[in-house]
Amino acid sequence: MTVQEAAAQIRARKTNSRELVAESLQSIHRLQPRLNAFITVMDEQAQRRAEAMDRELESGYDRGPLHGIPVAVKDVFCTRGVRTTCGSLLFKDHIPDIDAAVVERLEQAGAVITGKTSLHELAYGITSNNPHFGAVHNPWAPDRVAGGSSGGSGSAVAAGLVFMAMGSDTGGSIRIPASFCGTVGLKPTTGRVSRYGVLPLDFTLDHMGPLTRSVRDAALTLEAIAGHDPRDDSSSRVPVAAYVPAQQAPLNSLRLGVPENFYFERVDPEVERSVRNVAEVAARLGARLISVRVPDIDAINTLGRVILLAEAAAVLHNHLKKKDRFGTDVLALLEQGAMIPAADYINAQRLRRLAVADFNRLWDQVDCLLTPTTPTTAPRLGQERIRLEGEEFDVRLLSTRFVRGVNVITAPALSLPCGLDSGGLPIGAQLLARPFGDAVLLQAAAALEDALGCHDMVPQSL
Amino acid sequence: MTVQEAAAQIRARKTNSRELVAESLQSIHRLQPRLNAFITVMDEQAQRRAEAMDRELESGYDRGPLHGIPVAVKDVFCTRGVRTTCGSLLFKDHIPDIDAAVVERLEQAGAVITGKTSLHELAYGITSNNPHFGAVHNPWAPDRVAGGSSGGSGSAVAAGLVFMAMGSDTGGSIRIPASFCGTVGLKPTTGRVSRYGVLPLDFTLDHMGPLTRSVRDAALTLEAIAGHDPRDDSSSRVPVAAYVPAQQAPLNSLRLGVPENFYFERVDPEVERSVRNVAEVAARLGARLISVRVPDIDAINTLGRVILLAEAAAVLHNHLKKKDRFGTDVLALLEQGAMIPAADYINAQRLRRLAVADFNRLWDQVDCLLTPTTPTTAPRLGQERIRLEGEEFDVRLLSTRFVRGVNVITAPALSLPCGLDSGGLPIGAQLLARPFGDAVLLQAAAALEDALGCHDMVPQSL
Repeated sequence: MTVQEAAAQIRARKTNSRELVAESLQSIHRLQPRLNAFITVMDEQAQRRAEAMDRELESGYDRGPLHGIPVAVKDVFCTRGVRTTCGSLLFKDHIPDIDAAVVERLEQAGAVITGKTSLHELAYGITSNNPHFGAVHNPWAPDRVAGGSSGGSGSAVAAGLVFMAMGSDTGGSIRIPASFCGTVGLKPTTGRVSRYGVLPLDFTLDHMGPLTRSVRDAALTLEAIAGHDPRDDSSSRVPVAAYVPAQQAPLNSLRLGVPENFYFERVDPEVERSVRNVAEVAARLGARLISVRVPDIDAINTLGRVILLAEAAAVLHNHLKKKDRFGTDVLALLEQGAMIPAADYINAQRLRRLAVADFNRLWDQVDCLLTPTTPTTAPRLGQERIRLEGEEFDVRLLSTRFVRGVNVITAPALSLPCGLDSGGLPIGAQLLARPFGDAVLLQAAAALEDALGCHDMVPQSL
Repeated sequence: MTVQEAAAQIRARKTNSRELVAESLQSIHRLQPRLNAFITVMDEQAQRRAEAMDRELESGYDRGPLHGIPVAVKDVFCTRGVRTTCGSLLFKDHIPDIDAAVVERLEQAGAVITGKTSLHELAYGITSNNPHFGAVHNPWAPDRVAGGSSGGSGSAVAAGLVFMAMGSDTGGSIRIPASFCGTVGLKPTTGRVSRYGVLPLDFTLDHMGPLTRSVRDAALTLEAIAGHDPRDDSSSRVPVAAYVPAQQAPLNSLRLGVPENFYFERVDPEVERSVRNVAEVAARLGARLISVRVPDIDAINTLGRVILLAEAAAVLHNHLKKKDRFGTDVLALLEQGAMIPAADYINAQRLRRLAVADFNRLWDQVDCLLTPTTPTTAPRLGQERIRLEGEEFDVRLLSTRFVRGVNVITAPALSLPCGLDSGGLPIGAQLLARPFGDAVLLQAAAALEDALGCHDMVPQSL
């Protein structure tokens, strides 16, 4: 069931928040041994809040589609009085005295948070194989990673434990688990959603966004959480649009860019076929396919990597001496980051401005760009290398290849489930749009979702 | 003569631009062997332009107070077709094909540029003892430095070679030569004046502003050059105010802050006496003196130093291998900068935000803050250490002590001549105001200037 369907059932009195929240909590506990999607489950708070939400609705006070809906947030979002670990030993007993802006806004919209989802340690990696809180498992195949860093959110939404789970995305951390778990994952435009109250990994690449079972659910979540926040320096004053697409969103005016270079190179053939099929479906719906050359994404990814390595090392500067508090992979990245000279970082930020301008010229030609989200489906837990076209690739570098650069250029991006491979694992297509074109992005994605029918894909193994 | 006086004489037909420009060019050439204030003199262009400016005025087209006035710009401002060296071997043959925004705006206001003033190599130092273009001399005493990095501009204005000379200020480079040469020097609020077309030393600390013989001349120059410029990322959209103070600017509503800590420590006694006298004069004019504790300026200076070292190394990154193209002191700073880790730079920028907020609370209590500009008057050429209160100090660190932090906190600041020491060298008082309080700053400075009568101070030795 989607948020929209659950909201309709609540208003038709076929169910209520108490029932939905109870089901959510039960399924979280039932599947926790198999998925390990949560670090903290908020049984009592959630039940009390569900009762309050039901009372409001009974009294005629309706906060909109999220009213009474059980959701989860990644364990980087501060929750007042509830432990917020960031998946790290450094914060394992950290109980914030504030709510993150996103948490505040979700609660204003009536959502009921049932728990805090697990993640890659410090949100710094793509497997969510967490050395301190255990590995998160993919609901489609328990020996596969859920992706990361928002792996718990991807796993929880795909397994139907909650209707929506918030993630954060610094170099693909929403879109990669969405791709691997077969959910929708939205990284909004930079500055669109407040980062206040989120343990930061990075100062200029972090984004907050939802993982959901449908594009319209992502859109209605964005409507709830978007908008200016003076507590976040990078928060934009660009007015918030209406993001939820109409029930029959048209595609016939869409100019859909299909990259000639980079994005279909070094891609698993089944992934390529499935994503190219999305373009064909779009064309059948009347979209105009436009073949485009994209700027040098390898260079943009390199900028993203230098900026992230340096900023993450700066964030954790005071903790870097406590080496035994970190997992091997995260410590290696932090130590690498600490060695980057300031001049390289400053020049990466300068080149970033040129890359943004360069990439933005693309939006004169096309409204959206279609790419695979990840070059492969979910790798196995513990797998470090992937073979593609006779070459071996590092799992992290390969999985971030199509998503990391988008954080550099500030554009909104969404991962849309578009099929299963022959092993029964979900495939994700990535759509991009111009900065602050989030509404255009969601409209196109909703029309494609309707035509593809992939949001009925659910893991049968559970 | 000030710009205002010259402008009045032009309109009274007692002189014209041709005459003023010819006098400027003659005196530049006559004193070049003694002062070495210029790197390039623009004889022909200036004469042609003076004729054009006179024709405009004769036809009744009046561009305002700068119309026809001979001025100079520091040799960091790009001038189309005219060599712009930045005082460096790297750019010794650099002929730009654009004008800096400031040059464009000065010319729109009718100013006639008679030459490009000398400076500390790459604007990176405070002596203007340039190893490639020779030392700039102080008109008050040829064995003394003119200050820097805008030393040529200070020397030229103090010696009466031009009515106004533009400088740039990254850590005091306008205010230090103003203090040492006995001129007014204005560093406007960050973002107030476009940096487009200026060879940058730094991305977040650079400011452009005038050195003049009176506060009102600085104000009318600011009116000509201030305003938004989309070509400069840091350019502000805050509306430009009327900056030129009335002829009898009142002081009776002014809350003038006098620091209890830091700013009168380690100061030459003659400088202290002269600056404290400014406060007494202000009090006699009706200002309310308020004794205030200032935030930790040593810490703010350290942030400024880390940021400048790193950003300067980033700017010159591609040139750093050519060690023989740099003077010893500048090379040492660049090599120091290249070794700063990105994490330290990023954290300095984070702490800077806190320092700005911290310092800004001061403006609830006071309208302006009064400090010495430099702890001493001009040191001798070649002097590396200064003795004060029984301690030895490095000349560069001591001279930047009261000015560098102001670039970090973005506030506008002005150096005002306030007397001579027993050796006959000028003393400068620094006034600060809240960010975008440039008009308040200029108003207070003009009233004090009128009362002090120091702008009649001229070097007799020439």
